[in-house]
Amino acid sequence: MTQIGVLLSGRGSNFLAIADTIERGEIPGARIAAVLSNVAGAPGIHAAQARGLHTATVESRGCKRAEHDAAMLERLRDAGVELVCLAGYMRLLSPGFVDAYPQKILNIHPSLLPAFPGLDAQRQALAYGVRVTGCTVHFVDKELDHGPIVLQRTVPVLDTDDEAALAARILEQEHLAYPEAIARVLSGRYHFAGRRYVLRDAPTMAAGGTH
Amino acid sequence: MTQIGVLLSGRGSNFLAIADTIERGEIPGARIAAVLSNVAGAPGIHAAQARGLHTATVESRGCKRAEHDAAMLERLRDAGVELVCLAGYMRLLSPGFVDAYPQKILNIHPSLLPAFPGLDAQRQALAYGVRVTGCTVHFVDKELDHGPIVLQRTVPVLDTDDEAALAARILEQEHLAYPEAIARVLSGRYHFAGRRYVLRDAPTMAAGGTH
Repeated sequence: MTQIGVLLSGRGSNFLAIADTIERGEIPGARIAAVLSNVAGAPGIHAAQARGLHTATVESRGCKRAEHDAAMLERLRDAGVELVCLAGYMRLLSPGFVDAYPQKILNIHPSLLPAFPGLDAQRQALAYGVRVTGCTVHFVDKELDHGPIVLQRTVPVLDTDDEAALAARILEQEHLAYPEAIARVLSGRYHFAGRRYVLRDAPTMAAGGTH
Repeated sequence: MTQIGVLLSGRGSNFLAIADTIERGEIPGARIAAVLSNVAGAPGIHAAQARGLHTATVESRGCKRAEHDAAMLERLRDAGVELVCLAGYMRLLSPGFVDAYPQKILNIHPSLLPAFPGLDAQRQALAYGVRVTGCTVHFVDKELDHGPIVLQRTVPVLDTDDEAALAARILEQEHLAYPEAIARVLSGRYHFAGRRYVLRDAPTMAAGGTH
């Protein structure tokens, strides 16, 4: 069993998608050991408590990043967390945090990275005029939205899209992508080839809806 | 009828895809008025001649860019060309060329721009580790691989892909994308909204295989 720690700052819709998928038994070997927030009163924490999950809030406001990260790490270690999933966690991780979980921290970003890193990815995509965007689940390294990619799902940009409509359709795909990415990581069947995260022994692999 | 000029430097597989689609009557209002090469002996020119198309070669080797572009422009104007399609034309256009055909020059690039501009886009995609890439038909402006996007098609990156295998699958999609993009431009139904190239009067638009 792999102990998962979820970090969130808001409603945590991706956390809920992950928790639902685990409850349905669709991520073999996964258990949510802790749900942590850096914001007091985050709705995602209430939802986690309602599901009987272990939660904690370590307020980051007015706290130095290194000190806050150390406090978060202590909670994660106390809960035996082995894999950290950022789910709308609106705070950059310190290098020390990344070093504490090497290639064991996942994040999801609402674009097809490396396009449109950083804030307001959906707005960036509309402003650029791309016809397709999507979401990316990736390992976290010390650069913003940069680590190796676990999987991506595509979303067409419609002529009528505004930022809210596009963001909503991307979010639907995020809720599919994140659980599938966790299952991929926990399967033990993938390894790194340079930056590529690929099946260990795959002479051929069929194309699927998820890429 | 819109007179199209194709510029190529090699075999011109995208030119052939465009010519085939026009011959099948699937790009209403399109006619290829000239096929020009900057390289002597380009196979694409022989293929164009075999189809009875008007061709010309203006060798660029040893020729200054502005002078070469002026000579190409003269051929295009003589042939009455209204829309220029770059199809493996391995030479940067001078600002004067771009100004001569404002928003009337199309190019195709083997990635989902703005990701992986420039040379070796397929190699860049594999090195980054993306799970999906594709091709982009865009208007040419004065920056490299930067103008407004007409359409994009996606291609999954398979675990077993090397550069050649990925490039071949992207090329299949290019051959669908380029004719479809020309049809979109010639339809007269699209206009610019900032950088977005969208249907003029589309209250809603269904998602399709082409984005």
